[in-house]
Amino acid sequence: MSKLVKKNYLLAPGPTPVPIDLLLEGARDTIHHRTPQFKKIMDEAIEGTKYVFQTTNDLFLLSSSGTGAMEMAVANLVSPGEKVIVVVGGKFGERWEKICKVYGAQVVPIKIEYGDYATPEMIDDALQANPDTVAVFTTLSETSTGTVMDIEGFSKVVKKHGKLIVVDAISGLIAQPLKTDEWNLDVVVAGSQKGFMLPPGLGFITFSEDAWKKVETTTTPRFYFDARAYKKNPAPYTPAVNLIYQLKKAVEMLKEEGMENVWERHRILADATRAAIKALGLEFFSKNPGNVLTAVRVPEGVDGLKLVSIMRDEYGVTIAGGQGDMKGKIFRVAHLGYMSKFDVIIAVSALEMVLRKLGYNIEYGSGVKAAEEIFEKEGV
Amino acid sequence: MSKLVKKNYLLAPGPTPVPIDLLLEGARDTIHHRTPQFKKIMDEAIEGTKYVFQTTNDLFLLSSSGTGAMEMAVANLVSPGEKVIVVVGGKFGERWEKICKVYGAQVVPIKIEYGDYATPEMIDDALQANPDTVAVFTTLSETSTGTVMDIEGFSKVVKKHGKLIVVDAISGLIAQPLKTDEWNLDVVVAGSQKGFMLPPGLGFITFSEDAWKKVETTTTPRFYFDARAYKKNPAPYTPAVNLIYQLKKAVEMLKEEGMENVWERHRILADATRAAIKALGLEFFSKNPGNVLTAVRVPEGVDGLKLVSIMRDEYGVTIAGGQGDMKGKIFRVAHLGYMSKFDVIIAVSALEMVLRKLGYNIEYGSGVKAAEEIFEKEGV
Repeated sequence: MSKLVKKNYLLAPGPTPVPIDLLLEGARDTIHHRTPQFKKIMDEAIEGTKYVFQTTNDLFLLSSSGTGAMEMAVANLVSPGEKVIVVVGGKFGERWEKICKVYGAQVVPIKIEYGDYATPEMIDDALQANPDTVAVFTTLSETSTGTVMDIEGFSKVVKKHGKLIVVDAISGLIAQPLKTDEWNLDVVVAGSQKGFMLPPGLGFITFSEDAWKKVETTTTPRFYFDARAYKKNPAPYTPAVNLIYQLKKAVEMLKEEGMENVWERHRILADATRAAIKALGLEFFSKNPGNVLTAVRVPEGVDGLKLVSIMRDEYGVTIAGGQGDMKGKIFRVAHLGYMSKFDVIIAVSALEMVLRKLGYNIEYGSGVKAAEEIFEKEGV
Repeated sequence: MSKLVKKNYLLAPGPTPVPIDLLLEGARDTIHHRTPQFKKIMDEAIEGTKYVFQTTNDLFLLSSSGTGAMEMAVANLVSPGEKVIVVVGGKFGERWEKICKVYGAQVVPIKIEYGDYATPEMIDDALQANPDTVAVFTTLSETSTGTVMDIEGFSKVVKKHGKLIVVDAISGLIAQPLKTDEWNLDVVVAGSQKGFMLPPGLGFITFSEDAWKKVETTTTPRFYFDARAYKKNPAPYTPAVNLIYQLKKAVEMLKEEGMENVWERHRILADATRAAIKALGLEFFSKNPGNVLTAVRVPEGVDGLKLVSIMRDEYGVTIAGGQGDMKGKIFRVAHLGYMSKFDVIIAVSALEMVLRKLGYNIEYGSGVKAAEEIFEKEGV
């Protein structure tokens, strides 16, 4: 490989590639955050982000990772001793569970096998068995398994029971359709380093009117993540000025494209990736794979850790391995954010070369062919 | 003014001007945070930041504002019902008080008038009267009044009583000497948008061995800011990759210059600013002004809010007004971070022109002259 230029390709489910124009937007002169000039930028960034969330609810920009936004949801909605239902089918469902427990909630988990998904019926059953539940915590796209869940279906059930629904849409938003208002989602959280095409450092959170009612009575101690402070002033503490420049521009780009088109382009990339994986004779890990990433079982006889590290260190292609118990057993290829059809081709081609290198017999070009056929069919 | 190019000068106590080289460093390609490549960058950024803090203690980088780092200090050190002493002489002392109260601490405030400072004797008295105190919360530079406090003196007293000392060094660090290890400071917090010359978005926090002992037994619920998670893995949640590129470079620059020189340059800028303010016949607000900023009383007959807004909107010079009760009564000129002697000259010259415009009679050039004399005396 050393005879050639090595370029780096970031094909992981966050951070995702940042377009050069957005990188440079972050290199603009830092201005003071308590000026009318910055207030205008921040207001526009918030309005644009609301469009991406498909909401007119209050939406706040946090200087934090997505996990900070998750903590904000829990700390503002759940008092110690209150009961919550948490859908747990991977690392990020487990994170909801952990945060809720840290804050003293009584957690009723809906445990599903890694790679599997929950159904609206399971939520209904859990709510019927636990009528004293205050909120249901869910995940749009479980990044650790690549599984997408039926948030719209969950919400209908949760609303039938008159409860609050909270959605971790950190990796799912933008790649996967999500309509905060139409689906009656009370709290939705996300982060900058996914479909937004931005570097990490910003968290996002929305609150519905029903959520606000609960925020007012929640007794959990909170300060940095106290939603009431952000309602009074969207920048209660110094905001991440340069990241907000970038956000404003990113949401302008997404609005110009239109969310329907944004979702559609993610679907096509996912379809092409999946066709290639199938053509290579590999097996999906998820029973309901979404548009964010494709999780694939490492075939027998192949060292999964080596596969990921050779892809990265020798080929410059960063995909993700498995997390926790799934380490070495799966790998995850993202098609999230600023990715073209050739990013899919690169991922598949690298996979073909590295699988062969690791002794797994595939025909060169067979995965790429399948992806190309999808692109042709879709007319892209 | 419209006949000329208007340049913008950021002379507020944070955010501060970011050198172009550091802005561009943030525009570098975003790489994945779970790679050996990024781990190396992050490790080097942390090592360099430890040098700036003058410590070998554990130091963590947070995706948060400085306030997030303050909350991390409180949530990890104070259990509900425990007693803390807080030095309160401005908005940021009040912030310690608020956070401690939110987390159920019993707060013993050492209240001093705005602009005044606490003495080690006051801390000693408070600790004698409250032997069950677990920690003393202090502020190196109270940004709202421009007052610097004798943290070294405070620490000697606190250590005599065998208690923990926590320092908000958010605006003070780098402008003002602070030696975490030599002064036995248990927890020190700071933020990126001050002397570090970076955009906002990163918080910093250090923990001494004594602090760790307390962290282990503290019962306050915490997740995003749980210090134990960062001890296990310095990046427990996706870190702000591009800001960390910038941090690595910024601390290299500071190390190359040497902290003694960095402190000295801040002192000279502060001295020159102060000489100019005096020459203009204006009055300092603080009884112990530090090197971060100079807070000045708005002279009688002058509209303080107008002064700040005309400076900014007509002259392009952003200084800070007063916060809370001090609104309209003081203005604050920073000499913090990436500032040259001509930034002082600009601040003083703009002040001369705007004061005259607002009907306050000063002699043009008289403030600038005084500043120039200091620069000559200092041989800079």
